[in-house]
Amino acid sequence: MTTNDSVRVSVLGLGAMGSALAAALVTAGHETTVWNRSAGRADDLAAQGAQVAATAGDAVQASHLVIACLLDHASVREVLDPLAGHLAGRTLVNVTTTTPNQSREMAAWATEAGITYLDGGIMAVPQMIGQPGSSLLYSGSADAFHQYRPLLDRWGTSTYHGEDPGLASLYDLALLAGMYVMFAGFMHGAAMVAPAGMTASRFADMAVPLLTAMTNGLHEYAAVIDGGDYTVAGQQSLEFSDLTDILNASAEQGVSTEVVDMVQRLLRRQIDAGHGTEGFARIIESIKNPC
Amino acid sequence: MTTNDSVRVSVLGLGAMGSALAAALVTAGHETTVWNRSAGRADDLAAQGAQVAATAGDAVQASHLVIACLLDHASVREVLDPLAGHLAGRTLVNVTTTTPNQSREMAAWATEAGITYLDGGIMAVPQMIGQPGSSLLYSGSADAFHQYRPLLDRWGTSTYHGEDPGLASLYDLALLAGMYVMFAGFMHGAAMVAPAGMTASRFADMAVPLLTAMTNGLHEYAAVIDGGDYTVAGQQSLEFSDLTDILNASAEQGVSTEVVDMVQRLLRRQIDAGHGTEGFARIIESIKNPC
Repeated sequence: MTTNDSVRVSVLGLGAMGSALAAALVTAGHETTVWNRSAGRADDLAAQGAQVAATAGDAVQASHLVIACLLDHASVREVLDPLAGHLAGRTLVNVTTTTPNQSREMAAWATEAGITYLDGGIMAVPQMIGQPGSSLLYSGSADAFHQYRPLLDRWGTSTYHGEDPGLASLYDLALLAGMYVMFAGFMHGAAMVAPAGMTASRFADMAVPLLTAMTNGLHEYAAVIDGGDYTVAGQQSLEFSDLTDILNASAEQGVSTEVVDMVQRLLRRQIDAGHGTEGFARIIESIKNPC
Repeated sequence: MTTNDSVRVSVLGLGAMGSALAAALVTAGHETTVWNRSAGRADDLAAQGAQVAATAGDAVQASHLVIACLLDHASVREVLDPLAGHLAGRTLVNVTTTTPNQSREMAAWATEAGITYLDGGIMAVPQMIGQPGSSLLYSGSADAFHQYRPLLDRWGTSTYHGEDPGLASLYDLALLAGMYVMFAGFMHGAAMVAPAGMTASRFADMAVPLLTAMTNGLHEYAAVIDGGDYTVAGQQSLEFSDLTDILNASAEQGVSTEVVDMVQRLLRRQIDAGHGTEGFARIIESIKNPC
């Protein structure tokens, strides 16, 4: 048994994600203490061998390593503010979804209280925890990341992104933004073809291979963006990318145009500013420079 | 040499896509006649062995199979309307990007003139024509599709979607909608992380595997949509999907929130209508039912 096999760990918050994180730790043989604001959520974990703490304070005192997976930033402050004294000298890994500035606020609070702070962002749904494809981003204390990495790896692939505690949240939210917007684009296409009798599943059969293939094109756009020259030859121009046909077809089908209108607005602002013959990747300038 | 090897074919329109289509036909050994409104675009093709027609009428009369790959629907009408008599008895394959109703209008015009009509949508950029990954959708005359399929397959994987000539355009535009919206989502994420010093290429390294993995989730959303029951257990709820953290983080980073606002609006309309505990896939109802 290595040192890492015997880590004592407490998990605060037993929503779907907190429960999945705690279950993975129990399965891995860690002495796991769990707490949830409302009772009853810990029953399954107790049956698997977790200790159930009556209060958040008891949970904190049970382990040197404390995981917070609560509803939001306000919940974290509400639960942990009164426990700063108990947390002093321990390590707090906060995987609650927060904004980067909220993560930085927590880190400042933790430093003040003598708590080692690591912030985490989870790129997985609860069912994926501990399975291939689950990815977790961390930033904040490098020492905490390296000390507890074997435990963190039980949840998925762990990557460390720097001492700035806001970076894990930032990257997490930026990736989630890309994911949700992609989902909305798929929904728009499925809505367009529905009146013609095509099921969403048949549309997915066509769209998934295309979208998968097109994700590879993102590296090319990224190279253009990083190069800073949107006039590089061989790119599809903004003018050629005009989405009027898609908008008209959407209207013909009786569906909302707002999903595609969003992209068209990004395009038009660049065309109107005189960049119509430059590459499509230039739409990022419309996002970077809000009007 | 089979019958299909000796097809005579004319290509009207030598933009980047028309030139790529014509080049693939020349390479495949077809007797290819090309025409473009402005001169000089045919030089490379002529060097490869294509015949260059002085007028669109000459091009039409040179072959039984005529491909139109022009700027837009208006260009197609402008070039072909005066040539209805020449086209009578021939087959017209129109791969110009148009809306479904414009495709149907062309098909009605063609039927009236005694022209066999097949409409096509190209899911590829010009550089991909004839390469793996290039996909072309067709609808309209099944006879034309089957007769000329070996030739059409020179451009990429050909699929036939029914006698309704609007379907190829509809599916093409619906798939393109999904693609462009996905691109915008990626750009949003890259814009969010840029102020923190992350290059777009490093963001792509993180985003491409995630987006690729998440495209598989589209089949699950599609199954829920087709099942018509957004209350099926195990789904991420609309309320849980609230994008406030992403919007706040975007604002913190100083970038436009409009890309993500679009998804949040779709979500909020369903939550406001009392469906907050139902699955995320329900956002398609916001698109299907414009407000």
